[in-house]
This record gives sequence, structure tokens and C-alpha cells, in this order.
Amino acid sequence: MNAPDAATSARASVPTRWKAVCAYDGTPYHGWQSQTNAVAVQDVIERALATILGAPVRIHGSGRTDTGVHARGQVFHFDACWPHGARRLLIALGTKLPASIQVRSLAPAAADFHARFHATGKRYIYHIHLGAADPFATATCWSVLKPIDLARMEAGARLLRGRHDFAAFCAEGGDERETTVRDLRRLEIVRRGRRVRVILEADGFLYKMARSLVGTLVNIGLGHLEPADAAALLHTGGRIPKVKTAPAHGLFLEKVFYD
Amino acid sequence: MNAPDAATSARASVPTRWKAVCAYDGTPYHGWQSQTNAVAVQDVIERALATILGAPVRIHGSGRTDTGVHARGQVFHFDACWPHGARRLLIALGTKLPASIQVRSLAPAAADFHARFHATGKRYIYHIHLGAADPFATATCWSVLKPIDLARMEAGARLLRGRHDFAAFCAEGGDERETTVRDLRRLEIVRRGRRVRVILEADGFLYKMARSLVGTLVNIGLGHLEPADAAALLHTGGRIPKVKTAPAHGLFLEKVFYD
Repeated sequence: MNAPDAATSARASVPTRWKAVCAYDGTPYHGWQSQTNAVAVQDVIERALATILGAPVRIHGSGRTDTGVHARGQVFHFDACWPHGARRLLIALGTKLPASIQVRSLAPAAADFHARFHATGKRYIYHIHLGAADPFATATCWSVLKPIDLARMEAGARLLRGRHDFAAFCAEGGDERETTVRDLRRLEIVRRGRRVRVILEADGFLYKMARSLVGTLVNIGLGHLEPADAAALLHTGGRIPKVKTAPAHGLFLEKVFYD
Repeated sequence: MNAPDAATSARASVPTRWKAVCAYDGTPYHGWQSQTNAVAVQDVIERALATILGAPVRIHGSGRTDTGVHARGQVFHFDACWPHGARRLLIALGTKLPASIQVRSLAPAAADFHARFHATGKRYIYHIHLGAADPFATATCWSVLKPIDLARMEAGARLLRGRHDFAAFCAEGGDERETTVRDLRRLEIVRRGRRVRVILEADGFLYKMARSLVGTLVNIGLGHLEPADAAALLHTGGRIPKVKTAPAHGLFLEKVFYD
């Protein structure tokens, strides 16, 4: 798994595998992944790369993000012949991409690096605004008008941390996988003024798992559920109507981990 | 200057004078002040109030803000008969106003209170992002790609603080006033990571004065002007092409002061 020298590979006409980290405001996009009849973040980056490289390019993300979900650290890989170095490719992308998408870093990777299959974990941060919506936070925070008891949220979070079957927090429509067991190694609630951040870190997330966990914690904070219900939900073995999904626009994919 | 009781005045059919503090994302508006053929923040608030009160209302701001300029603490006053108290008026406004405008507080004021004429000073904050634009800062920060020397900016700021004739920092198109002398009692440059805030506080600001000061400081930081030029500009007695105006979208009207 040694990273080859980009310029050397290009001269030899062997495409280089590139690893890129990007940030995006998810508001105007139908999620990360390409689909028919809607513009996804992936499409916009692929088009920019194709213009720069003069050939079609397929990029592979670490995973999907839903419509409206943001990212500060989404990772993707692609193969391309580009003999001018990472810095110039980064600058070229900066001129081609809209303001809502930014490739933050770019480097040659091992030829077999895979953004999705090599990921060992992910960190999401969910932003909640306490009280009436702030005009500068409407697109990036869930504004909750009614008072939230953060101590109750914390009591619920304590029961959810760790290795569990999170089937109750997995929405229909995701990939069918062999297991719904995940290791939720971090679930923290941090308040600063009227802003509450829920930090979630796991070896992997099921479909809508991050938003289902936040929706449940907020419902506990609002008094609609008891903290102990969090533990009970882990034993249901499947999705039940009690579990609400927090709105997409408060969620940020913060970081993807690799060994 | 005693604040009358709102309910009492309304029962007596004498309208109450209200003082309100509001925040707005200036991006979609043609500034604060009403004008023909464009939607201003003032229009939107007046329409919301008219719907709630069932009668046309004219509001009076502490001053204009230009197209694209934001506010966290714009102050305005208006007269209205509303017997249900400040809290219910605030809630009603919350349901009628778009997410880009928020009335933050509202209270009955003295009958002669005037948002503009009684203002004793204003605080603006200008936000600069160092380096390539962040997708979450494009609407609220000026992204400056080339390296800025903040020590040079600070040296320039030191010469601009205090009571001076700021005619060089006043753009054409403003109101003709008796004097262009202002007391710039605060001009601070605060860096945190890649974000630089320029805090400006004065007894009053000339037309585009805040953005002209920031434009000049950034030009000093970039090496296009010397710090000493800041003092020289104060002696020109009028606008000269050397003075550049920083973009509107980085500027926030933060606070209006009253005795």
C-alpha cells in the first residue's frame, strides 16, 4: 500500500488513484450519490473533474449522504492521469466547483485504496439550535422551540453508547446488510450558548442511524420518551414508529477514518 | 421618557411606540430600506406587521444597510395598537416572517423614542475568511485567497482609531451631512483559526464607511498600501480611488447603542 508518485504514474500512462476530502453545503443537492432526474454532489464533482481532465471520471464516496445533509469531511477516490501534481489539481477544482462544494485536500493514494471499503469509522455532528430559528442557522441547524432537558438527553445517550444492535435506528430503504450491529464508540452532547452539538462516532452507520439517534435523544429531552426507552429500543430488533428521524439539514458528515 | 404600559395605551386607543431588535440574512434583500422595484427587509417586516395588526404600519430603522449586508442587532420603532403584550406580538411575527428575518426582542418604548435619532453609536463586525472559500461561509464572509499580514493591518488600524474626519472613507451616494467627523472608538482585529473579525464601533458611520475601512485595512495587509497610508488618507478630505470598499456580504450590523 505505498502511495505511488503521481507524476511518474502519469508519464507511464498508468492512472493514479487519488484520495480527496471535500466539504459541501447539502442544501441545493439531492444528496451525495448520483441518481436520475436530480443533481447530486457526486455529479457536480465528476463534471468538474471531467472538464479539467478532458475525460469522463467516476468518483467513489465513502458512503451516501441524504438530501440536505452537509459534509465537512466526505472522502472519495478516483483514478486519473494528471501529471501536474496535487496542488494544481486542487486549484483547478476550486475554479470549476460552485461555492457550495469545496475539495479541501487531495493526494495520490495506494492503487487499491477504496474510500468506502477501507473506511474504519465515521464521525457525524448534529447541530441543534435552542429556541426560535436564527437567520444564520436555518440551513445548518435544527431549531427546537420547546425546552430540551439536556440531562435527560445525556442519560439516554449513556445507554446507547457502545456495541449494540441498532436495527431500531435503521430506516427502511438502506442496503440490506448482514448485520445491524455497530460500535457507537462516541455519543456526546455539547452545549455552547443556544447551540447544542451531538457528536456521533461509530465503525459504521446504518441508513438514517445518526438522525434516528438524534431524533430519539431530542424526544427524550422533550419528555416524549424516557431515558430508559433508549435501552428498550435496542432490544426491539427492528424499526418502530416511536423512533423519529431528526431533520437532514442539521447533520454534518465530519470525518471518515482510515487505518 | 417613561415607557407606557402597552395594554393600557391600547385600551385608550392611543397607539404604543414599540422598539424592536431584529436579525437578518441580507443575501436575498436589496438592503434594509424600502425602494421601488426591489424587496427590502423593511418591506417584509412591514407586511408581516400589517397582517398581524390589520392595518398598514410604517417602521423606522436605526439606519440603512446596503444590499447583502447582514444584521444581528438592527433596531427599529413603530406605532401600533396591540393589546396582547410584547410576547404574543413576538410570536406572531415569528410565524409571519421568513426564516431570513427574525425579530429578536420587542418592548414598549417611550412615546418619543426614535431608532435613528436617539442612536448614540453602532457596532459593526466584518468577517474575513483566510484562504479558499468555505461552503458554509460564502454568504457571510469575505474569502481572501492571498496571505494577509495581520500585524500590518493592526498597524494601520492604530492610526484610524479615534476622532477623525473620515471623508476619505465615505462613498458618494450617502446623505449630505454637516460633518464627516466621526469618533471611531473601537477598531479591533481578532483572529481565530482561519476567521478574522474586524470589530468597528463609532458614534456614527458615514455611507460605506465600515466597508471602506475594512477594504483599506485588507489592502494594507496584502501590501498594496502601507500602514502609514491610513493616516495620510484621513487628510485627503474626500474620497480617492485608493480606498476600496470591502464586499457587502462580510458585514454585520451587530448592535445599535442608545443612552
